[in-house]
Amino acid sequence: MKVQFLKVKIKLAKISTSAPKKLDKEKTKLKTIDLCAKIGALQNLLYAASKHSVLIVIQGMDASGKDGLVKRICADINPSGVRVHPFKKPTDLEMAHDFLWRVHQVVPEKGIIQIFNRSHYEDILIQRVHEWISMDVVKQRMNHINAFEQMLTENGTTILKFYLHISPEEQQKRLLERMNDMSKKWKYNVQDQVESKLWHSYINAYEDAINLCNQAAAWQVIPSDQNWYKEYLVASRIVEELTKLKMKFPNPVIK
Amino acid sequence: MKVQFLKVKIKLAKISTSAPKKLDKEKTKLKTIDLCAKIGALQNLLYAASKHSVLIVIQGMDASGKDGLVKRICADINPSGVRVHPFKKPTDLEMAHDFLWRVHQVVPEKGIIQIFNRSHYEDILIQRVHEWISMDVVKQRMNHINAFEQMLTENGTTILKFYLHISPEEQQKRLLERMNDMSKKWKYNVQDQVESKLWHSYINAYEDAINLCNQAAAWQVIPSDQNWYKEYLVASRIVEELTKLKMKFPNPVIK
Repeated sequence: MKVQFLKVKIKLAKISTSAPKKLDKEKTKLKTIDLCAKIGALQNLLYAASKHSVLIVIQGMDASGKDGLVKRICADINPSGVRVHPFKKPTDLEMAHDFLWRVHQVVPEKGIIQIFNRSHYEDILIQRVHEWISMDVVKQRMNHINAFEQMLTENGTTILKFYLHISPEEQQKRLLERMNDMSKKWKYNVQDQVESKLWHSYINAYEDAINLCNQAAAWQVIPSDQNWYKEYLVASRIVEELTKLKMKFPNPVIK
Repeated sequence: MKVQFLKVKIKLAKISTSAPKKLDKEKTKLKTIDLCAKIGALQNLLYAASKHSVLIVIQGMDASGKDGLVKRICADINPSGVRVHPFKKPTDLEMAHDFLWRVHQVVPEKGIIQIFNRSHYEDILIQRVHEWISMDVVKQRMNHINAFEQMLTENGTTILKFYLHISPEEQQKRLLERMNDMSKKWKYNVQDQVESKLWHSYINAYEDAINLCNQAAAWQVIPSDQNWYKEYLVASRIVEELTKLKMKFPNPVIK
């Protein structure tokens, strides 16, 4: 499955990072609470039926609100059926393998929702931006990602990929806020400011990932300057996709 | 660390499976909501500080309410820092190793709360009750469990073990209820009734596990005929133990 451009190329600069001005914040928040209850019920059904699995990939710049989103969408789920894997700097053992090795180990089996907080996409984002790999390797990896996601899809995994789209101004605001909040201060890392200066290179790399790794599972670009809007969009999408599976509770084992 | 009897031996038959009659159900439920919010805040701190880990072991007969308890105590946590592992029938690969092999792989690293829904204790419970292993092997395994839990404790893991104590009448009631609830019917398995007939052998095996594997981490016997009381007791205990760790948010990385 060769990388190929979409007919309509997504340009991130043309997509707003904000909620529509007329949208009612409080009403939207109530809708999200409802949606999260639905996610809980659907997850219970997914676990019971054990015929499908779900992989939710969350990507976004530093401070785009990945952790908070994970907590929100899991508000009403049973943690027995949901796992969250935060991808960090690869270990020596992981680096000594192909880039999908550590990813493959944590894909969801049937019945399970797996959330990736960052993912295999870091291998064509941070690694490309810092020029740790060549563009030839970036393209190779894109092909591998497409084939890998195709295989998971064929095996019954619904893949949902969300790019949390924030403005550089919102990012700066949040990074500074961290320093004034006792419970968030520890998250501050001077390296985040270094990465932040590479904003345009990251946007460029994200744009390619979104446009070229869009075959087995399409990316959703989520305007994320307002958390309540971001949470609403993502929860809606999850409910929509899980509903499509038309799952049923299995029969009890009676003999 | 040889197995040895406690000075005061716990006799399950002497411990009530019910909530105290005078306890106010609604007030207790409100207290539990408060406690779960505290668990959430303490879990966030545990994750940030990353100096300790927590292992919560939940054991109990079929229908003692293990799944529901997990969902309740995780009501306000960030799933990024909590993992739940349900121990099921061992795979062929797991059976071809020592009984702690699969357990060791899923113990929590620093910063993480790991919940075991069933655990390594099954290896001295179901296996003993069905006489798949001899009593010599049971005793050997008890020694290994004590040494293993001691090692985890020395490495900064707080181990909390809960036995969900229900009456056989309550179990029967719940097993039958399953058949009348569309969302629970699938859990019904005729094998549960077979296991249920072995009630006294299980109580006997649990009593030994509780009394003899009580060194690195003490068991808590939780009266569990009422879910609201069970949840209150377990949440209280978790808050109490996490508070003892006197954790602090780390400093940000500023250079």
